Amino acid sequence: MSTVRPEARLPRGFRDAFAADFLARRKAIDTICKVYAVFGFEPLETSSIEYLDALGKYLPDTDAPGGGVFALRDDDGEWIALRYDLTAPLARVVAAHPDLPSPFRRYQFGSVFRREKKPGPGRFREFYQCDFDTVGTASPAADAEVCAVLCRALRELGIPASDFIVRVNNRKLLNGVLDAARIDEPSRRLLVLRSIDKLDKFGIEGVVQLLGAGRTDPSGERTDGAKLEPAQIDLILGLLQCSQPDRAGTCDAAERLVRDSESGREGVAELREIHALLDAMDLPSSLVTFDTNVVRGLEYYTGPVFEAELTFLVEEEGEKRKFGSVAGGGRYDYLVERFTGNKVPATGASIGVDRLLAALAKQRGERAESLPGPVIVTAMDRERLADYQRMTNELREAGIPAELYLGGGGFRQQLKYADRRLAPVVVIAGSNEFERGEVTLKDMLAGKQLSEQITDKLVWRKEQPAQRVVPRSRLVAEVQEIVQRATRGSS
Amino acid sequence: MSTVRPEARLPRGFRDAFAADFLARRKAIDTICKVYAVFGFEPLETSSIEYLDALGKYLPDTDAPGGGVFALRDDDGEWIALRYDLTAPLARVVAAHPDLPSPFRRYQFGSVFRREKKPGPGRFREFYQCDFDTVGTASPAADAEVCAVLCRALRELGIPASDFIVRVNNRKLLNGVLDAARIDEPSRRLLVLRSIDKLDKFGIEGVVQLLGAGRTDPSGERTDGAKLEPAQIDLILGLLQCSQPDRAGTCDAAERLVRDSESGREGVAELREIHALLDAMDLPSSLVTFDTNVVRGLEYYTGPVFEAELTFLVEEEGEKRKFGSVAGGGRYDYLVERFTGNKVPATGASIGVDRLLAALAKQRGERAESLPGPVIVTAMDRERLADYQRMTNELREAGIPAELYLGGGGFRQQLKYADRRLAPVVVIAGSNEFERGEVTLKDMLAGKQLSEQITDKLVWRKEQPAQRVVPRSRLVAEVQEIVQRATRGSS
Repeated sequence: MSTVRPEARLPRGFRDAFAADFLARRKAIDTICKVYAVFGFEPLETSSIEYLDALGKYLPDTDAPGGGVFALRDDDGEWIALRYDLTAPLARVVAAHPDLPSPFRRYQFGSVFRREKKPGPGRFREFYQCDFDTVGTASPAADAEVCAVLCRALRELGIPASDFIVRVNNRKLLNGVLDAARIDEPSRRLLVLRSIDKLDKFGIEGVVQLLGAGRTDPSGERTDGAKLEPAQIDLILGLLQCSQPDRAGTCDAAERLVRDSESGREGVAELREIHALLDAMDLPSSLVTFDTNVVRGLEYYTGPVFEAELTFLVEEEGEKRKFGSVAGGGRYDYLVERFTGNKVPATGASIGVDRLLAALAKQRGERAESLPGPVIVTAMDRERLADYQRMTNELREAGIPAELYLGGGGFRQQLKYADRRLAPVVVIAGSNEFERGEVTLKDMLAGKQLSEQITDKLVWRKEQPAQRVVPRSRLVAEVQEIVQRATRGSS
Repeated sequence: MSTVRPEARLPRGFRDAFAADFLARRKAIDTICKVYAVFGFEPLETSSIEYLDALGKYLPDTDAPGGGVFALRDDDGEWIALRYDLTAPLARVVAAHPDLPSPFRRYQFGSVFRREKKPGPGRFREFYQCDFDTVGTASPAADAEVCAVLCRALRELGIPASDFIVRVNNRKLLNGVLDAARIDEPSRRLLVLRSIDKLDKFGIEGVVQLLGAGRTDPSGERTDGAKLEPAQIDLILGLLQCSQPDRAGTCDAAERLVRDSESGREGVAELREIHALLDAMDLPSSLVTFDTNVVRGLEYYTGPVFEAELTFLVEEEGEKRKFGSVAGGGRYDYLVERFTGNKVPATGASIGVDRLLAALAKQRGERAESLPGPVIVTAMDRERLADYQRMTNELREAGIPAELYLGGGGFRQQLKYADRRLAPVVVIAGSNEFERGEVTLKDMLAGKQLSEQITDKLVWRKEQPAQRVVPRSRLVAEVQEIVQRATRGSS
């Protein structure tokens, strides 16, 4: 054993999930995956580690290959890395298995890892994603379904339709405007995309500066601009500002701006088809809207892009504001091609489960709800351990979570422990009870409620209103009854 | 986009789980965790990454710190690594959170990562563990519960009592024999432990050689021995061979060997207490046996050790043999002390889910069973996409997994896809059906069965015995009926 003691701490940006948070996340993931399955997606679980070159350099905000990921050299010298999303591994799977059904519709949930330079609250280096994708079809019906899945998942999570909106855009519209503005160089087109992506952060004024001469932060930090002509900037602004409350209206407005570009016309046609299919699924514009402001940072999107936003206000950093995006995705037609050379069109989205749960907790003004814990069988008399174990065992055989107290200390400490574990019932048996063939059951929930009503300590001690003595043979039945009441009360 | 194409492959020792395997694992994990919860364990999910020094150097078969793990330097220069088990992270959590309930009973499942030099079939570099531990009690009742949890979990997984056994030993017995044999040096004691650990591999003869002069492999490879005296070896062999069919008998036999050693007497007393508690839980010697051969490789065990073994024979490498251990654990009283300096006794075990599933699949002679896939709504007429989408949507709203075919190709290809996806029903609607307000349903399961009976192709084509035409308004009800039949059939 080493003489220097290691510190009990986690590297920054990593965290543990304790019972209540874990169970809340598990429940949300189960709900979401059930929706994915109802839409015909099947599960896939890829390896956590991939070859670095298979992950590509699509990580947002990093230009260096391997930047932003946790990478190391394998024994044979090759670079391997923890996955940073679930899309790159999917592309690798599809490329490696030409025998998969086509279209291939899969869902996957799991941890992804990002080597954030500045992790902080809400910005972790390991977090959950919950993805679904359709690979192998260019049909806008697949894109319409992405919206439908997002709506259904949020609905099943208990979020009312008035509290969220799915925004849809099409990268081809922007390409159409860039064509119209005669901005042809790929690097400049990318610069425009990135400038627009800053809309939420800097507002329309900031984007105009980024598209033009450049922008200076209040802190004095300078960002170079894309140096576009005012007429070019106007065309782009025209697109950003053409969204209408109804989807058909947005299609009409966008069409006027891009009709001279093939890509633009294609984009509008796709949106019109998506619109018709959304109508067929009874998803109105109030729920799934077309919004020409939506960019989604990732370079790899080639067509429709999606974003699901929670619209209720939450308190953040002392201000009431919209919580913002909790899911996003889009069409990416080149990810599989990277491997095989064959174009394999694909579309999908990812629900940020952790972010979503944080939003719901903020709205409800509470932490994840706690379920009742196990029944605690106290160990009053150490000589009777086998008897206590037998009682505990009977409860467990009946499917009731139960635990024999195994720690030290007297009765008070055992009760304290039971309280801490949120035990619905405490089972007590001392020599009196054993002699009479009885057990005492303490109803912890009733006890808590009564202790708020009854302030007279004498009455409390004498009458023990939340306790009952029952025959030993009735142990399971009586505990069952109290537990069921407690479970109903908490749900 | 890079001009050099990456290969679509995984680093060796890593793998993907497709739908059937994923669902089988998920189901097993759910079953196991439900048992853990019934025993009063609560879930915890720790970070995948830890500081290397927090993981310690407890990895089996590696002496170098950091050997056998995937480690890299964080941006601040500190070494971080992927967890190689779930026990070291638990110790870190307990040390970091003195406010946790005590005893702290938690379960955790998840991937662990080992940098195997020679990964191969059944030996992966990322695999699942499913752990439960009680931290903060020295009571043998906690050890008895470990056995009870393992029995219950295997039972709930559908393994009959005749097909498994839990073996229990106590490290203190061996310590007692080492005391009696006057082998005091820690490094020599460890060497003896490691020699005994090879019993399964080399047999009793091999162990005798390892304890004595040394052993030469059939391949010529030489292993140095512990160089014990014959009398010392005899004492150790005495312990290895003293197990009896009944637990009390083994305690008596072991006691005769170790009664002069304090550690040995403690070990026997603990086993006797565990025996009494197992009796109280109706777990006979045929299910939980005391076996003085069980070592469990890990150095950190300090008291009782456990191993669950499947006893049915499976075909492996052309031979019928016992599949062997699928779960193991033990008492480890120093893991938390590493961090805090305070002794915190703990005990628990880990179920190797992947190994267990492999064993069950081998026994049942089959791969993971496939569930029915989604209902496939064929797209006969591309102009009617919105109508097909509406049908699909109705099925989904009723909770029936359903999918609109989004790929290319004609009707044959769509049927082939449906077959591939294990669709229970295919929905067909062409212009005839639309005119009459009807849809055609193809019962895929009945179709398969009938096609085995009816060999006359003409009859088959004319009568289409597995198809039925139903009113459009009855779509959901009729599909529901067929799906329910298919689901019953497969379960």
